[in-house]
Amino acid sequence: MTDGTNGTVPQLDTLAADAEAKLNWLGEFGKDPDGGVSRLLYSKEWVEAQHALKEWIENEGLEARFDEIGNLFGTLKGKNTNETILTGSHVDTVKNGGKYDGQYGIIAGILALKYLKETYGQPLRNIEVVSMAEEEGSRFPYAFWGSKNIVGLAKREDVETIADFDGVPFVEAMKEAGFGFRDETKPARQDLKAFVEIHVEQGSVLETEKIPVAVVNNIVGQRRFTIEVTGEANHAGTTPMGYRKDAVFAASQMIFDIISMAKEVGDPLVATVGKIEAQPNIVNVVPGKAIFTIDVRHTDKDAIVSFTKQITDRMNEISKNHEVDTKIDMWMDADPVPMDEKIVEVMEKQCKENGLTYKVMHSGAGHDSQIFAPFVPTAMLFVPSVKGISHNPAEYTHPADLAEGVKALIGSLYELGYKE
Amino acid sequence: MTDGTNGTVPQLDTLAADAEAKLNWLGEFGKDPDGGVSRLLYSKEWVEAQHALKEWIENEGLEARFDEIGNLFGTLKGKNTNETILTGSHVDTVKNGGKYDGQYGIIAGILALKYLKETYGQPLRNIEVVSMAEEEGSRFPYAFWGSKNIVGLAKREDVETIADFDGVPFVEAMKEAGFGFRDETKPARQDLKAFVEIHVEQGSVLETEKIPVAVVNNIVGQRRFTIEVTGEANHAGTTPMGYRKDAVFAASQMIFDIISMAKEVGDPLVATVGKIEAQPNIVNVVPGKAIFTIDVRHTDKDAIVSFTKQITDRMNEISKNHEVDTKIDMWMDADPVPMDEKIVEVMEKQCKENGLTYKVMHSGAGHDSQIFAPFVPTAMLFVPSVKGISHNPAEYTHPADLAEGVKALIGSLYELGYKE
Repeated sequence: MTDGTNGTVPQLDTLAADAEAKLNWLGEFGKDPDGGVSRLLYSKEWVEAQHALKEWIENEGLEARFDEIGNLFGTLKGKNTNETILTGSHVDTVKNGGKYDGQYGIIAGILALKYLKETYGQPLRNIEVVSMAEEEGSRFPYAFWGSKNIVGLAKREDVETIADFDGVPFVEAMKEAGFGFRDETKPARQDLKAFVEIHVEQGSVLETEKIPVAVVNNIVGQRRFTIEVTGEANHAGTTPMGYRKDAVFAASQMIFDIISMAKEVGDPLVATVGKIEAQPNIVNVVPGKAIFTIDVRHTDKDAIVSFTKQITDRMNEISKNHEVDTKIDMWMDADPVPMDEKIVEVMEKQCKENGLTYKVMHSGAGHDSQIFAPFVPTAMLFVPSVKGISHNPAEYTHPADLAEGVKALIGSLYELGYKE
Repeated sequence: MTDGTNGTVPQLDTLAADAEAKLNWLGEFGKDPDGGVSRLLYSKEWVEAQHALKEWIENEGLEARFDEIGNLFGTLKGKNTNETILTGSHVDTVKNGGKYDGQYGIIAGILALKYLKETYGQPLRNIEVVSMAEEEGSRFPYAFWGSKNIVGLAKREDVETIADFDGVPFVEAMKEAGFGFRDETKPARQDLKAFVEIHVEQGSVLETEKIPVAVVNNIVGQRRFTIEVTGEANHAGTTPMGYRKDAVFAASQMIFDIISMAKEVGDPLVATVGKIEAQPNIVNVVPGKAIFTIDVRHTDKDAIVSFTKQITDRMNEISKNHEVDTKIDMWMDADPVPMDEKIVEVMEKQCKENGLTYKVMHSGAGHDSQIFAPFVPTAMLFVPSVKGISHNPAEYTHPADLAEGVKALIGSLYELGYKE
């Protein structure tokens, strides 16, 4: 931003204070009595938040508009209006979530546009911020409703028969909020030349390594499994060890080996056994059944395939040794989503030029960016999450890091929106 | 039974048919709509069953009486009425239990007394059968109410403030059933010279080894623990393996090692992890907590102490390696109860003399006999349980085995009650 301009750089203190104040302000919409935020798609709080954001965008002298389904856009018009650089994230939260996840990406985007407009005036291309309707899938059994509508992936039939936990149909909630379906006969936007999303890390890598900003080059793929080990339930006192088919014993060896193997393979592979259940789950009964889940993630598809093959073989071997039956059910198989190399390069370049300490890393969590990436050149920025806490009222990012993130976003949007 | 008598031995077929018919008859009291029996202490079904048993006992020409709390006794009077050989078991069942557990010991006892009376006439000592009020602890949080009253262990204050799952106070249920507290100022019975309990094995050792009868020489001691492993809950995608404190990973190693160590020690040691829980128990969250139980049993106290020391050390070592916190809470510590050597010898002798195939084994489950043993010379007989199934409507023992058991009981009571 120092080349060809007046050399002004954003004031760190002002950005920190602005970002924090706006996050607190937005966090009031859907604030839970005991802390945290619940702002589910098309709820009253959600409608109020989107309209309040629209008002703020307009007050900053930007053009604001909703699309049919309720994504909110704010545009800083460029000389060439056929090309748009998009930034932003999702406005919905999980139930009793924090005030950073998604929301920081919108606020950072508006602050960046405001700063760019005030500092550099009209850009070469449109620079646009979006407050997307939905990403979490927390109200209805459908996720990424916002981004999937922008790129044309969401279909009317996907949501026509679904309802929330109280039985309210998706379509009814949408109409109640003042929105409707997009016209699926019309093609998706062709003007989007880049999507840049800034988000909290939701992990503790940046905090641990004391780095304020990351450039994200990949979103992991993941496979999820449910494993059901069936042995034989027996009396814990009257069944000698040699007579048992103990499902928890077999499962314990599987779990220990899976996690050990994942540690051995090393970063960026992660494997998690998050859920476990024994049956009948009684202190004095040898468990006849053990059910557990496995979540495997990696940035490389082949690595996921190879690791899940290894653990499947190992589980089958253990199953045979224990003389139990093991059912391995893979119910999720999502490929990794690489970010656009050129945008990653632009982001790295401006971090260096502006003296920002950063690292290049992958995202272990899913984001709207993974929906955009196959359609629009996309990359992400991360700021640290204190203790990696996420989807929780205790979600927190230090104001100084919020500011560094906004600076990195400003720099990136400047490169993408103002340069030839 | 062939020495000094007319040489008659019980007819196997008749005993099989009698035992099965009477078990079916008794199983009608508290029969559940979809199979199984629920006959909880002092319930309507329980009262009806005890009174029906009293009537049967009287019809067989034996003296029947209740004690204060509702234990039912049937006596075949001996020449010396100061000495009594007692047999029997408990009449209560677990919720939706089977028709063999406890009940077989009462029915076998009555059939044995009937046979002895008809075959040999008056014994030297009283031979008495007891249908004990309660053993399972299934209605009120108190177990062995029947046997503990006979030996004088049960105290009024133990049950005065307890109630069942519907809030019905113990004392009210007892009065409603027509019973009350025993006079605690009076000493326990001094005439009991032996207690012999026949019971279904509740394990599959006899079935697997194709042996119809066992002489029980010991009831295992047991220790029970709850283990709480505390690590750190984290996002399954964004937390690299090296950053994790995965409670389920640590617990899986503990469980695998505990069971492996128990297998290495070998019979009669058994160790069971029956119950396990992860927190927050979500597929995509590294578990911050894992809670599991351990049940350890052995016939030798020192072996229990030494094994639990070993696994405690191992768990602490694993806990340290995983950098998690582990709380080990021992909430049950019951010593093994050896059966009376002389009675075991008598039982073995008569099995041999009467050509019964038997084995000497320990009981891995608790029984009324463990309450009697410290006060009265006590031993047990087992008959096979098909597939070891117990506390379940599918509880089953083949009629031929039921008959072998009654024969072994007749032989034992003859030795104890008719011989000098």
